[in-house]
Amino acid sequence: MNRTIELLAQGQSCWMDDLTRRMIDSGDLARRVGEEGLRGITSNPAIFEKAVAEGADYDDDIVRAAVAGRSPAGIYEELITSDVRNACDILRPVYEETAGVDGFVSLEVSPHLAHDTEASIEEARRLWTLVDRPNLFIKIPGTPAGVPAIEQLLFEGINVNITLLFSIARYEAVAEAYLRALERRLDAGQPIERIASVASFFLSRIDVLVDRLLRQRIVPDRLPPDPDPRSLLGKVATANAKLAYQAFSHIRSSNRWMALAEKGARVQRMLWASTSTKNPDYPDLMYVEPLIGPMTINTMTRKTITGFRDHGTVQATVTHDVQRARRVMEDLGRLGVSFDLVTAQLENDAVQKFIDPFDSLLKLFAAKGERAVAFRDAADLRAEARRLRRLVIRMTTEAGSGHPTSCMSCADIVAALFFREMRWDPLDAAARNVDTFVLSKGHAAPILWAALHEAGAISEDPLSLRRIDSTLEGHPTPLNPWVRVATGSLGQGLAAANGLAAANRLDRIDARVFCLLGDGECSEGSVWEAAQFASLNGLANVTAIVDINGLGQSEAAPYHHDTAVFARRFASFGWRTIEIDGHDMTAILAAFRTAHDGGPTAILARTIKGKGVSFLEGADGWHGKPLDRKQMSQALDELGDETQAPPVVEPRRVGQMARPQRVAATHSPPAYRLGDKVATREAFGHALEKLAGEEPALVALDGDVKNSTGTEPFAARYPERFFESFIAEQNMVGVALGLAAAGKIPCAATFACFLTRAYDFIRMAQYSRPAHLVLCGSHSGVSIGEDGPSQMGLEDLAMFRALIESTVLYPADAVSAEQLTAMAARTNGIVYIRTTRPKTPVIYSNAEEFPIGGSKVLRSSLQDRLTVVAAGITVHEALAASDMLDARGISIRVIDAYSVKPIDVVTLSAAARDTEGLIVVEDHAIDGGLGDAVSTAVGSTAPVHRLGIARLPRSGTKDELLDRYGISRRSIEEKVLQLAA
Amino acid sequence: MNRTIELLAQGQSCWMDDLTRRMIDSGDLARRVGEEGLRGITSNPAIFEKAVAEGADYDDDIVRAAVAGRSPAGIYEELITSDVRNACDILRPVYEETAGVDGFVSLEVSPHLAHDTEASIEEARRLWTLVDRPNLFIKIPGTPAGVPAIEQLLFEGINVNITLLFSIARYEAVAEAYLRALERRLDAGQPIERIASVASFFLSRIDVLVDRLLRQRIVPDRLPPDPDPRSLLGKVATANAKLAYQAFSHIRSSNRWMALAEKGARVQRMLWASTSTKNPDYPDLMYVEPLIGPMTINTMTRKTITGFRDHGTVQATVTHDVQRARRVMEDLGRLGVSFDLVTAQLENDAVQKFIDPFDSLLKLFAAKGERAVAFRDAADLRAEARRLRRLVIRMTTEAGSGHPTSCMSCADIVAALFFREMRWDPLDAAARNVDTFVLSKGHAAPILWAALHEAGAISEDPLSLRRIDSTLEGHPTPLNPWVRVATGSLGQGLAAANGLAAANRLDRIDARVFCLLGDGECSEGSVWEAAQFASLNGLANVTAIVDINGLGQSEAAPYHHDTAVFARRFASFGWRTIEIDGHDMTAILAAFRTAHDGGPTAILARTIKGKGVSFLEGADGWHGKPLDRKQMSQALDELGDETQAPPVVEPRRVGQMARPQRVAATHSPPAYRLGDKVATREAFGHALEKLAGEEPALVALDGDVKNSTGTEPFAARYPERFFESFIAEQNMVGVALGLAAAGKIPCAATFACFLTRAYDFIRMAQYSRPAHLVLCGSHSGVSIGEDGPSQMGLEDLAMFRALIESTVLYPADAVSAEQLTAMAARTNGIVYIRTTRPKTPVIYSNAEEFPIGGSKVLRSSLQDRLTVVAAGITVHEALAASDMLDARGISIRVIDAYSVKPIDVVTLSAAARDTEGLIVVEDHAIDGGLGDAVSTAVGSTAPVHRLGIARLPRSGTKDELLDRYGISRRSIEEKVLQLAA
Repeated sequence: MNRTIELLAQGQSCWMDDLTRRMIDSGDLARRVGEEGLRGITSNPAIFEKAVAEGADYDDDIVRAAVAGRSPAGIYEELITSDVRNACDILRPVYEETAGVDGFVSLEVSPHLAHDTEASIEEARRLWTLVDRPNLFIKIPGTPAGVPAIEQLLFEGINVNITLLFSIARYEAVAEAYLRALERRLDAGQPIERIASVASFFLSRIDVLVDRLLRQRIVPDRLPPDPDPRSLLGKVATANAKLAYQAFSHIRSSNRWMALAEKGARVQRMLWASTSTKNPDYPDLMYVEPLIGPMTINTMTRKTITGFRDHGTVQATVTHDVQRARRVMEDLGRLGVSFDLVTAQLENDAVQKFIDPFDSLLKLFAAKGERAVAFRDAADLRAEARRLRRLVIRMTTEAGSGHPTSCMSCADIVAALFFREMRWDPLDAAARNVDTFVLSKGHAAPILWAALHEAGAISEDPLSLRRIDSTLEGHPTPLNPWVRVATGSLGQGLAAANGLAAANRLDRIDARVFCLLGDGECSEGSVWEAAQFASLNGLANVTAIVDINGLGQSEAAPYHHDTAVFARRFASFGWRTIEIDGHDMTAILAAFRTAHDGGPTAILARTIKGKGVSFLEGADGWHGKPLDRKQMSQALDELGDETQAPPVVEPRRVGQMARPQRVAATHSPPAYRLGDKVATREAFGHALEKLAGEEPALVALDGDVKNSTGTEPFAARYPERFFESFIAEQNMVGVALGLAAAGKIPCAATFACFLTRAYDFIRMAQYSRPAHLVLCGSHSGVSIGEDGPSQMGLEDLAMFRALIESTVLYPADAVSAEQLTAMAARTNGIVYIRTTRPKTPVIYSNAEEFPIGGSKVLRSSLQDRLTVVAAGITVHEALAASDMLDARGISIRVIDAYSVKPIDVVTLSAAARDTEGLIVVEDHAIDGGLGDAVSTAVGSTAPVHRLGIARLPRSGTKDELLDRYGISRRSIEEKVLQLAA
Repeated sequence: MNRTIELLAQGQSCWMDDLTRRMIDSGDLARRVGEEGLRGITSNPAIFEKAVAEGADYDDDIVRAAVAGRSPAGIYEELITSDVRNACDILRPVYEETAGVDGFVSLEVSPHLAHDTEASIEEARRLWTLVDRPNLFIKIPGTPAGVPAIEQLLFEGINVNITLLFSIARYEAVAEAYLRALERRLDAGQPIERIASVASFFLSRIDVLVDRLLRQRIVPDRLPPDPDPRSLLGKVATANAKLAYQAFSHIRSSNRWMALAEKGARVQRMLWASTSTKNPDYPDLMYVEPLIGPMTINTMTRKTITGFRDHGTVQATVTHDVQRARRVMEDLGRLGVSFDLVTAQLENDAVQKFIDPFDSLLKLFAAKGERAVAFRDAADLRAEARRLRRLVIRMTTEAGSGHPTSCMSCADIVAALFFREMRWDPLDAAARNVDTFVLSKGHAAPILWAALHEAGAISEDPLSLRRIDSTLEGHPTPLNPWVRVATGSLGQGLAAANGLAAANRLDRIDARVFCLLGDGECSEGSVWEAAQFASLNGLANVTAIVDINGLGQSEAAPYHHDTAVFARRFASFGWRTIEIDGHDMTAILAAFRTAHDGGPTAILARTIKGKGVSFLEGADGWHGKPLDRKQMSQALDELGDETQAPPVVEPRRVGQMARPQRVAATHSPPAYRLGDKVATREAFGHALEKLAGEEPALVALDGDVKNSTGTEPFAARYPERFFESFIAEQNMVGVALGLAAAGKIPCAATFACFLTRAYDFIRMAQYSRPAHLVLCGSHSGVSIGEDGPSQMGLEDLAMFRALIESTVLYPADAVSAEQLTAMAARTNGIVYIRTTRPKTPVIYSNAEEFPIGGSKVLRSSLQDRLTVVAAGITVHEALAASDMLDARGISIRVIDAYSVKPIDVVTLSAAARDTEGLIVVEDHAIDGGLGDAVSTAVGSTAPVHRLGIARLPRSGTKDELLDRYGISRRSIEEKVLQLAA
């Protein structure tokens, strides 16, 4: 037999204090009553609040009640009385079996009434009538105002659980109220057999306060006084309860009681409340084991019941140690602790402890209710989300590939965005003054196409998904006019969203940018680079929505459905965060509304992959897998077949765009003097600043090296058009792309080697087909010198040449650097410009022009034995070598191949024809750079000898390094001599 | 005249309640006393605690006292009495000018004595003697135990500020004590003119509690009772004070007082305390303006003084509205709020409010004291840090470049690590079973070289920094044997630290890995990828130290010195965090000790760039800039010239290493059947799993695509050797490198296109010269089909070819995939292996061998007109084209160039000689890949025609795409026909 049942034999009933709907609906309450001897249950505002706040059990009822116009207090009453009534029915058999002694459910009046007798009476009557069950207890606090209410209610035949009793004096007052009520009923000729009352005495809170006062009296490093305050720690509450039980026994043996008992009166039992131990140093059952005895109840928490059933001792104890209890109370007085003050303070505090959760509860109902009323069209959007799900399933099954389940998790979010939240015009894909959507989780492309289709924004058949003649690609690209930036490599959308938002701000467009991410892609550091950029730049209009469906491609995502992890991260990066159930349409809409108050805002949406179809929901093995025809048919059945038309999207625009003034482009030529030593990086920076005056769309970005790349003058002069991106190159390139997608001409600069950091972003940028995107890499090659290999750009030419549609420029002096910078800003697509750290002499006149695809023949004669093709720093080495060789009577042709891609095939081919061979010399890795470009350009017409960095370089001076790695003037001379021999 | 001075004319003195050392030392107190009419000051345990906890003002004294053996209470007493004595001296002129009426400093006895009369008396006497100033007030609370102590102390001639008064009754008791003390002194023939006392009445706390009780009596949605509780909100404290002032006036007009006054007694003034407004809805001066009048003091907070000086009204008010005050108190009673209970509760609470900060203070002293004692050699380490600073200045000035200031900020941390915390052996750079250090902020290389030099670990002259013949490069590389991984591209060290720690765990080595980062580099997303990996993998032995010096290269770092931002971020990524002053040696040592309890742990160290040299500290414009000779000389002067020898590093090791068992390498050949269709990615995965059985050092990593790359069987079979790296490719490669640096053979796989994400990590990995590092990119080329360009690896060959020392392999079928995977694992350095998504037929027999640098001639005859060079998927297209051309009577040579780098120059040259030209066909961008490799290989011996992806690709089927982009069998056929025509 279990210990809670054994308690009954000792005259004590076990009650519980956490009534919730879950407990009722799950059968837990019935089981405990039926099998474990539970004899009563008590509602508790704190527990009720937690249940409402953290679960969805009450949500439907709240929505219904709110839409029906109920106030928060009305909603509360409706829910709580319904729960209490259901609990009463579950406990009714106990009530009947015990002839009304046990089997009660307690429900408190509003804690705001603790000091108002009349109001308490009124409310108790109302609740009694509303619940309408004989085994209901109305809880009334034993406050001074409560006592007369208690008497009146009992007189009226309403059962009262008197709560918040701390002192014996107050207990005696309520016991007196009970006797009087019964006597008055007898006087009025009313029956008294079914009048029930319990007196709830609070335990642990007494020790919490008394212990504190005792500890104030423990003086460190001194002999203790007598009595020693330590000896009373944790003793007072139980002592007080034992003495209260004495008072109870005393009343029960009075003649007055005997007379009532003879007329059938029931004992007003003693109920021990607040019996879980608060101080972890104390035993967990200290308020249970010593207080067992006849006519008592112990209302325990779930945890205390578990503990008692595990290791409790059942024996009659409440009448033990009474003398010791008296001594405890006396000692307390001797230490100057007034127990009257303690109980008075506890009563004040206790009322507050009920008011606080009660008020939070009403606020919660108000908030949930307001949301329900505000978004009463949520049902239409939910239906639309189901339409989207059906469509993506059909699309992917038709295509035979794709990611239907990744679309289904975000269908509600997408429906809310496209059909309610976003201001956009389905008939105008090119509009600038509208909200923008970036699908960072690009594999969910079908849901984007589906939403555009439903809104009438595209006329293409959605079932053409992934076909070679369709713009509805497997991942979004701007082949479809609604896509601003291509996505599909994860973790890139948010940086682009930053760029779009930054461009909006520059153009005074008050539009929002929504970026939908997956949870898996938040493992990409670039997401956090972008998060930092957004908050540092105050991009309040960026809203990130993370579709936390908990499943990655090959296994569960690292944090499953734990939205809090993502919320903490975004918060730590300076974002406002909102965690929601991503399938609760009103929560989604409310989150978007909250985001209006400013951001950047991250909405962390807990979703289910494959939502809506039983065999897909949260199932493993479905990433990137379409359904077969049979599965599709089952899925479509499950998703229902609403025939209503898709919602009409009202075309909406945001505030007017201020058109950037295009300044008449009067580009002035460079103003350098031949022979002056100027680093190409400086000249690039100077050119950029100059161009900015002519081209208002020009913007610049840098990765905290603006004093090295040369962008500093631009930053100083045009701060609003400059974006310090700090040491986060991926985000820098992503922001640049976003700016480009909004019509800007961005130029992003850092050390050439650090652009390797952003190669995936650069690669993806191709597919966004930006009109302009200039990237500048400084500090190329070993010529940077002592900083060593980590700072040397040696792969950049290879990296940019491998882009399918790109332009690669590499100036050798200040004049060409300035002219090529201007060309870069005017050339379509991605343009890379490579600059050099050391100063180099100006070799071109200011009037020289540098067309893309051209080159400069710097030395040429009919006697040329060989051709040296150089670029950048090696041009100067080649010229010096030419001088040295001239001295030996050997003439060579020297070509400055400043346009590495496209390469000047004509000039190179001519040189191949005219001379015995080409020596390509470049400050770059031997493979993939200028040497390869020249080799492929001249084909078989002449041998091509490549001089480039072919061993891992190291620290040293510029000249030492050029020489050691075979690209110096001497190396060239040597090679020429060798070939010419 | 300012308003606090105007108060004096009304008989009210303004005191303040925040005595701190900073206030004294900064001259703020003297200024306020001298210029602003401040007439007294009060110590306050809460403010004192804040000053001790958040600043370093007291640290030296605490250390000295702790090392001298003082208890926490002793330290407290020493510090507080010193401050109080100093404050007394500053206020002494006021005391003298006012003939002892004003100019006091108050100091409380321990709050633990509030209920102990005797102990209070003893402590007050002691403090009085210790401070030894006539203008000292000892604060004694007006508790029941306090009252007799007050009388006794006053009788003994000790000035008493009676504190914590809430009720008039208690006030009257202490006023009585004052009178009695004076009378007793007269009786005893003692003078009374200089006996001073004030009675401190507390204000705002009363309203906080009373308002709460009043609000309990406001019933929502009901008519208010009479009196309306709302009408009393915020009124009671002031009313009570006004009535107390009435009691004070009453006493002052008594005959008893008159008699004492005649003998020279001073008035016991009323002091208003707790006069800052707590409720933000109330006016800020509500406890100042209504309580102005003769013989009063108002002890204000700094903020209230500022407010009062700004907008306070000075007029005598304390005797106004007395009737209204009485009514307020009566109404309170009518509402059932017992003011006696309120004041009793406040007294209990107030004692606690002093005990809590007092106890925290003692804990703080205990902690700081323990630390001081535990790390009493901190002074030696501080001296060593200064030596390091001197050395890095000399090194960088000598080199003429480098980052001295970035070294100086972390000198204390580095000294603590190398000379105290780390277990290592300066004579054994190759040891595995030692702690490891990774300098992620690689530009601080000089401090690493300096520390190694000081420890005797290197014999090279530190002044050879950055020279071409020195291993002491500008950024750390393993040219120096103490460097495990090259750093210098920021944000990479932590990933490598993860790899080193993971390898330690695999090898059962209980060593720590310390990674020193800069604050600027934390903008790199890769840092957060690494942070996530460490916590997900429970790498408890990784300790990151962030040197938050607040300055980037080109401007301030984004978060300046805000260590909390970084702490929140690391915490949100699952790390334990410790924020410290990075120049407080004991704090540094304590943080390391705390990290022993498990991690990963991030130590966020607030530091100063250029620390130790006045003109460098926190100065702009000094990033990466050495001092000139003159500046160096000044800096070295400032840093002192200790001549002591550097500390000796005791060689230490950690737990024994379990040597991995090398299994006899009995590699079995592949077991495929010719013609079977198997994707090379599957064959790669199968091979990897097979190899793992032979090679215990083999480990694998994947970026959540293990079911696509083929690593899944390995992961399933060898879970402890598999690292799921989720979607974070930079960290994946960094971890792989760390594993390699610890002797593992790592193989990291993801889609080829996503390796572009990690290009900077791959580039840097070269410089770490790993013995083995295998990277596998799957899903190469357009042949992946419908997913579209975002998923197509088209730049990978260019990217890996551009590495200076790399091997690039590209199998065409399952047999070659398996053999090349085995070769990859055995080949030195970085090896890239490229695999294909679609299944392709097996074309090689299982016995075939695939040496690095080789190729396979698949079709060859004497009639070959042209040679088609292919690799991977295009090998099958070339074979098909050959068949098609055979049918037309045209014979071609077909070469499988599976070794893209090194390329098989011999075979290709032979083909160039034998046939009319080479057609290179590759599923890769046209530039940078196989075409370039073949072009440069064959030089001018034959024309090379390149077929590759030359336009931006899109979604479609594999065959459609191969055809559309010109690399299909038909494209090859067409090209051959065109050339052969």
